[in-house]
Amino acid sequence: MQAVIDTVDIPLCLDSANPEALEAALKVYKGKPLINSVTGEEHSLAKVLPLVKEYGAVVIGLVQDEEGIPKDSERRVAIAHKIVQRAEAAGIAREDIIIDCLAFAVGADTSSGLVTLETIRRVKAELGVNLTLGASNISFGLPDRDVINNTFAAIVIAAGVTCLIVDVAKVRPIILAADLVLASDKRARRYIEAYRQRHEQ
Amino acid sequence: MQAVIDTVDIPLCLDSANPEALEAALKVYKGKPLINSVTGEEHSLAKVLPLVKEYGAVVIGLVQDEEGIPKDSERRVAIAHKIVQRAEAAGIAREDIIIDCLAFAVGADTSSGLVTLETIRRVKAELGVNLTLGASNISFGLPDRDVINNTFAAIVIAAGVTCLIVDVAKVRPIILAADLVLASDKRARRYIEAYRQRHEQ
Repeated sequence: MQAVIDTVDIPLCLDSANPEALEAALKVYKGKPLINSVTGEEHSLAKVLPLVKEYGAVVIGLVQDEEGIPKDSERRVAIAHKIVQRAEAAGIAREDIIIDCLAFAVGADTSSGLVTLETIRRVKAELGVNLTLGASNISFGLPDRDVINNTFAAIVIAAGVTCLIVDVAKVRPIILAADLVLASDKRARRYIEAYRQRHEQ
Repeated sequence: MQAVIDTVDIPLCLDSANPEALEAALKVYKGKPLINSVTGEEHSLAKVLPLVKEYGAVVIGLVQDEEGIPKDSERRVAIAHKIVQRAEAAGIAREDIIIDCLAFAVGADTSSGLVTLETIRRVKAELGVNLTLGASNISFGLPDRDVINNTFAAIVIAAGVTCLIVDVAKVRPIILAADLVLASDKRARRYIEAYRQRHEQ
């Protein structure tokens, strides 16, 4: 952590399953850290949430628990509720909680994209939190992955995902176009500016 | 109509604002015709719906009326309800009604895409009818139109549009990818088959 913050001046996401390592990193981090991740498992909630509170962090909550990752949206939504309840009980503001509804290869399980989408829609409607997603998992094992990733990215953004984990170089045009058609880019300024920048290079 | 059905053997969409022309075409058409369009205007409902019923046609209903095209989703949804009610009262089955929620250039009106999307979601939830959309209008006047069109197509398909009006050659990969991530392509068979066909040519 010390080596990284000496080198770059951007917000960082701290990703470790080891709470001691996490706390050691939080002690030297400057600014508001993002912690990846807490789950619905008791041992995770008990160890990670106090660190989030103590260091004023933002936390990513994964919709999985002791029984693993649910195949259905019903149980994923229930875990999201549990994480938000426990985080708020620990004194963490709702705007500091980001839920990851989890996406998996649609090539291995036909319903996986739809389950993720249904979970996103319900978590957004019922909890109103920010949402992240490792969106490119969806296309694992299939050809022409970019077409699938771009299509899925557009769909999940419209459903409420606010901070996608994607290859920015590939997906940025889709995000700008999604902002445009979803009324988040007044007079198409950002879309047109990005177009100009691409064509001036 | 006679010249066209002598030449091609595919379902046709009959598009005329003139009910006499429409009826003349319906008289020679073979099979189940698609009529574009009826609106919420009294003169349109009164002249077009009896033709739809008499010839066993499918009809596209546009969400506009005597006051023009509403800027808000509330009134567009109300017009959709009116068209479906009047069509059913005329003896037309709900599966023979396709609603077009109308899309316009987001470059001219920032909120136009979102209004269309909200209308689609509500019409789908409240009426459950099939939906069409001239989706590429959304990008009129902007650069890199394909990126906007593809992104919007993915979003509206996920929201419930079932028969998009698009350039098939450009948008087919997006439609296949949307079907894939929305669980409508079991074991990714159609997606993979289309990929193979593209690469064998």
